[in-house]
Amino acid sequence: MGKLSHWQEIPGGVAAPRSFWASGVKAGIKNSDKYDVALIASEVKAEAAGVFTRNVVKAHPLLLTQKHLANGRARAIVANSGNANACVGAAGDQAALAMARAAAEGLGLTADEVLVASTGVIGVELPLEPVQTGISQAAVELKALLQGNSKGIAAEAKRLEAAHRAALAIMTTDTTVKEFAWEMECKEGAIRLGAMAKGSGMIHPNMGTMLGFITTDAEVPAAELQRLLREAVDESFNMVTVDGDTSTNDMVLFLANGASRINPVGEEWERFEQMVKAMAVHLAREIARDGEGAGKLLEVKVTGAKTKEDARKIARSICGSSLVKTAMFGADANWGRILCAAGYSGANFNPGKVDISLGNLPVALAGQGVSFSEDEAKLILQKDEIPISLHLHNGLEEATAWGCDLTYEYVRINGDYRT
Amino acid sequence: MGKLSHWQEIPGGVAAPRSFWASGVKAGIKNSDKYDVALIASEVKAEAAGVFTRNVVKAHPLLLTQKHLANGRARAIVANSGNANACVGAAGDQAALAMARAAAEGLGLTADEVLVASTGVIGVELPLEPVQTGISQAAVELKALLQGNSKGIAAEAKRLEAAHRAALAIMTTDTTVKEFAWEMECKEGAIRLGAMAKGSGMIHPNMGTMLGFITTDAEVPAAELQRLLREAVDESFNMVTVDGDTSTNDMVLFLANGASRINPVGEEWERFEQMVKAMAVHLAREIARDGEGAGKLLEVKVTGAKTKEDARKIARSICGSSLVKTAMFGADANWGRILCAAGYSGANFNPGKVDISLGNLPVALAGQGVSFSEDEAKLILQKDEIPISLHLHNGLEEATAWGCDLTYEYVRINGDYRT
Repeated sequence: MGKLSHWQEIPGGVAAPRSFWASGVKAGIKNSDKYDVALIASEVKAEAAGVFTRNVVKAHPLLLTQKHLANGRARAIVANSGNANACVGAAGDQAALAMARAAAEGLGLTADEVLVASTGVIGVELPLEPVQTGISQAAVELKALLQGNSKGIAAEAKRLEAAHRAALAIMTTDTTVKEFAWEMECKEGAIRLGAMAKGSGMIHPNMGTMLGFITTDAEVPAAELQRLLREAVDESFNMVTVDGDTSTNDMVLFLANGASRINPVGEEWERFEQMVKAMAVHLAREIARDGEGAGKLLEVKVTGAKTKEDARKIARSICGSSLVKTAMFGADANWGRILCAAGYSGANFNPGKVDISLGNLPVALAGQGVSFSEDEAKLILQKDEIPISLHLHNGLEEATAWGCDLTYEYVRINGDYRT
Repeated sequence: MGKLSHWQEIPGGVAAPRSFWASGVKAGIKNSDKYDVALIASEVKAEAAGVFTRNVVKAHPLLLTQKHLANGRARAIVANSGNANACVGAAGDQAALAMARAAAEGLGLTADEVLVASTGVIGVELPLEPVQTGISQAAVELKALLQGNSKGIAAEAKRLEAAHRAALAIMTTDTTVKEFAWEMECKEGAIRLGAMAKGSGMIHPNMGTMLGFITTDAEVPAAELQRLLREAVDESFNMVTVDGDTSTNDMVLFLANGASRINPVGEEWERFEQMVKAMAVHLAREIARDGEGAGKLLEVKVTGAKTKEDARKIARSICGSSLVKTAMFGADANWGRILCAAGYSGANFNPGKVDISLGNLPVALAGQGVSFSEDEAKLILQKDEIPISLHLHNGLEEATAWGCDLTYEYVRINGDYRT
């Protein structure tokens, strides 16, 4: 973020990079008239990388995708919402494979070139026929878009609209569609980066029911792509918490198809890395902001830590504290809860040295409260982005985490999710 | 629990064991007409043990109490609610010492014979004068009760009423007073055990803003008392979670004054140990049941684990999951969230082997859903105690944890706690 001088926004989401297409359809998995199957494809082979949930319970599509990623290559991503395809035994493995096969058949690929993702309720068998029908339908549309690969405004509008439907199709309780694309100028042309994500509930380090799909037309070998994705996820998706629950289905996938014919090196590679990391942070912030029932984005920045891991633990612990989250909901400058959450984070620090600020307002210095204007604090806490900063005066490391307030609406949404 | 054949309920709470007295007064710390200072004293020296929060941020009275406990002896406990006396620097250390001194002066003891506890808002200086006045007042009452140490019904009623006020005085957002006493027959007479506790918000392993004071007139040396208390707390208070926040102020204290002149050994010691552990579990359950905004008690029992620690991690992770808690609030048999919470607990197990039941209703076998009657599940989940059991089929270890549902009321209470 804030580095937009190095790149600019463009339309198209994951289909913005050259030779990528995306589409979303209504397959009828959700009991409502909503998009629920997304298909993303590259016209040419792409280098591929992925980062996955650390939950011991892993959804069936996740296991398949890990297998298909083993060679560092992929051509397509197929995803559904409305059903997690998790904890349903052999039927789940078969369903995930059937999804890959349906996409492969529709696009003229082999099944192992297709990565599969699901999100939704756990423990219920995926209704296979509607999903397969939906995937075929999406594939038909992608091929039509591909064949009509003209540069006309009408054709381009159609392409963008289809890609937008893909971003809609992975939403569950999300209230905003998360679809972004940026372009970075290089000496020999431009590199494009596209992304879509879903978050909302069950978001926690390390990753929640979080799906993130990132595409680029830069030339990047798979190993490099994987390293960059891992670093980007560590500083973004893994620093988001909505409700402390780490899902069975999380994954972030990154495809690089090289269609720009630019292999960024030196200063261009540095800018590319920055752009990818900024995109991951941007997605993470948008996921936190749109946490289930959330009214406010919390951004907790910890500086002056002895180790990076200490800074990370404290930032995430504060973001994850139900008592901090409800205080932020109530615009209550209860900084004691912030210091307390730091205290049980498992990090090593001296509470007697900690400075705490809400926005630019210092509320505690050297571990003790300072007198501050409650009115001024209210003004800061009533905004829809609340920056909380802690200086530990214990070293040079820092970390930032994102979260949201805990509201009545969170309870309402999750009190009766299945029915 | 369930072992009441080995002991029986008696009135009096912490003042039930011989030569213990307790009193609670309204010192005016809370901005309301509520009891907020409690004083417990033994007529004779008592062996003493304590278990404390693991939060790095420790309240001032906690540090003082640890110091005063170093010799394994104490005569009195003084506690206040309405202010945590935490994170206020040197003034906090002075305030904690002033509380001990006020109690010592009132009771004719030395300050280091007094243990101090506080609970309430963090980071605000304790209003010292009203607290000291309240403590003196409570001490005057205790001495009057002690001098009028007759066996008459009226005198006993007065004693019980005063002890009840002590239990009231440590409540914060608790809605029920937690005060219990049991008596166990031995060959040479009876041993009594008394207890009071407060819980409600910020309850999490390892301990929340949890104060627990346990008294007995058994003869038990301090080292033995400490070992027993540690074991009891590990299986009770440390297995309770309300909202994932571990407080700065938690402590459980255990005083044994030997006034029964019974030194339980052999079978009597075993029964005594059982009784103490059962009391700790009873307090823990009552704390979970009365969690902030809670409507239901969750009891999660994990069996068939390879290690005790695995069983503990899984049980606590499920109890602490916001998604499980909201599902229980909504009486939604969403067992996938239960398995998911087990999956991110950090414990080692095979999700494909796990059986899950709600009450006596199996909802998943070998990691997969089984068809069950949603109506039957609703009936189980609408009760005010919800037993959730998991069998891991991975070993012989087990553990139980307690928690509560996550409700609108939790959000309301914590959205504006300070004001």
